[in-house]
Amino acid sequence: MKDEIDALIFDVFGTVVDWRSGVAAGVRAFGLDTDAEAFADAWRARYQPKMEEVRSGDRPYAPLERLHLENLRFVLDAMGLSVPEERLGALNDVWHGLPPWPDSVPGLTRLKARYIIAPCSNGSIAMMTRIAKFGGLPWDALVGAEIAQDYKPQPAVYLESARALGVAPRRVMMVAAHNNDLEAARACGLRTAFLPRPKEHGPGQTLDLIASDTWDIVADDIDDLAAQLDC
Amino acid sequence: MKDEIDALIFDVFGTVVDWRSGVAAGVRAFGLDTDAEAFADAWRARYQPKMEEVRSGDRPYAPLERLHLENLRFVLDAMGLSVPEERLGALNDVWHGLPPWPDSVPGLTRLKARYIIAPCSNGSIAMMTRIAKFGGLPWDALVGAEIAQDYKPQPAVYLESARALGVAPRRVMMVAAHNNDLEAARACGLRTAFLPRPKEHGPGQTLDLIASDTWDIVADDIDDLAAQLDC
Repeated sequence: MKDEIDALIFDVFGTVVDWRSGVAAGVRAFGLDTDAEAFADAWRARYQPKMEEVRSGDRPYAPLERLHLENLRFVLDAMGLSVPEERLGALNDVWHGLPPWPDSVPGLTRLKARYIIAPCSNGSIAMMTRIAKFGGLPWDALVGAEIAQDYKPQPAVYLESARALGVAPRRVMMVAAHNNDLEAARACGLRTAFLPRPKEHGPGQTLDLIASDTWDIVADDIDDLAAQLDC
Repeated sequence: MKDEIDALIFDVFGTVVDWRSGVAAGVRAFGLDTDAEAFADAWRARYQPKMEEVRSGDRPYAPLERLHLENLRFVLDAMGLSVPEERLGALNDVWHGLPPWPDSVPGLTRLKARYIIAPCSNGSIAMMTRIAKFGGLPWDALVGAEIAQDYKPQPAVYLESARALGVAPRRVMMVAAHNNDLEAARACGLRTAFLPRPKEHGPGQTLDLIASDTWDIVADDIDDLAAQLDC
């Protein structure tokens, strides 16, 4: 397997960084008077339906920070919270300060020595740039939704990401903590690696605790993925 | 000045890497029976006219590796040289192995600690990925021609690069060893920094030996640019 791939592309929210802890910490630091974890969960709950507006063709592609801002306004309103208009941007930017899981930077650093590594996230280039700077993620390139002007799991996102990297899809491995992300990548001809992030959604998570299919690699975490690829 | 910018974007061919030495070394290693420097110069001489086909609207955007390949076929033919079709791709890829100037990696590393740094090159994302890996260039993101689907000095390349990074054009500084690149960036509202690369075109270079205008910063090299920005 290790000689059959040239690039590894990664889901980021949940797989590489702990978005829930990061958003909750940011909401708390911002001074919002609410349960920060519950707020993070409510904000994230509108993530898939909002992207579906783009995937379905109901609206043109808009970068994730814009969708996040629309969702933020909705959640604030639904919770009866009020934030001055001029501070909304700063609150929206808490998505830039997401801590990597402990194995992410060491694992990515090992993989980078042998392979091209890049995020294949629904986050925009601007978001990926800031998340990488915050956490020290050593990406070689940034691909994903913005390159394709669509959102995962639409095939264009995986295929355009491979094309932008100049690597044939069969020589690209998609790495994710989400089985449905890997299903979509496999359908595009990519290789697949699963690793569980059982605390992504906090205590009581029931989804994606185990690999739901025979992915090319199932690893404990990114560091273990590097070990399995002899990096 | 140092607090008025958030991102520095860089011309790459000539400014960050020594394309002429790199291409010549690659041509020599490939085994082409010709004067390697003269071959590099002839190949590069067709760079601007070929991009002009895209800038003028005569043809849709095609990534630089495709334009390079067309130019390679032309130059081989013009010089009466023959390369087997199946080896042309490998010869075209000598553009991936371009050595950074000695100050580039130290200077970029210093700048990265404070600013977002990214190439704003006419090279594609795939080319920038491989050039960065070859030379250890520590970019935060890759922007430039492919993001804009056009070629410098078209305004879209500077403006789309700033947009993709999520930074207002006036808070982006374009860094180049080519005065015309900076003229175009300034016209888009970007800040500008010039540094000379008097050996880019080999001995006898006459162009771009000095700053032709009052750019925001004129530096000796990228390391000096970092020093002038207190990095």
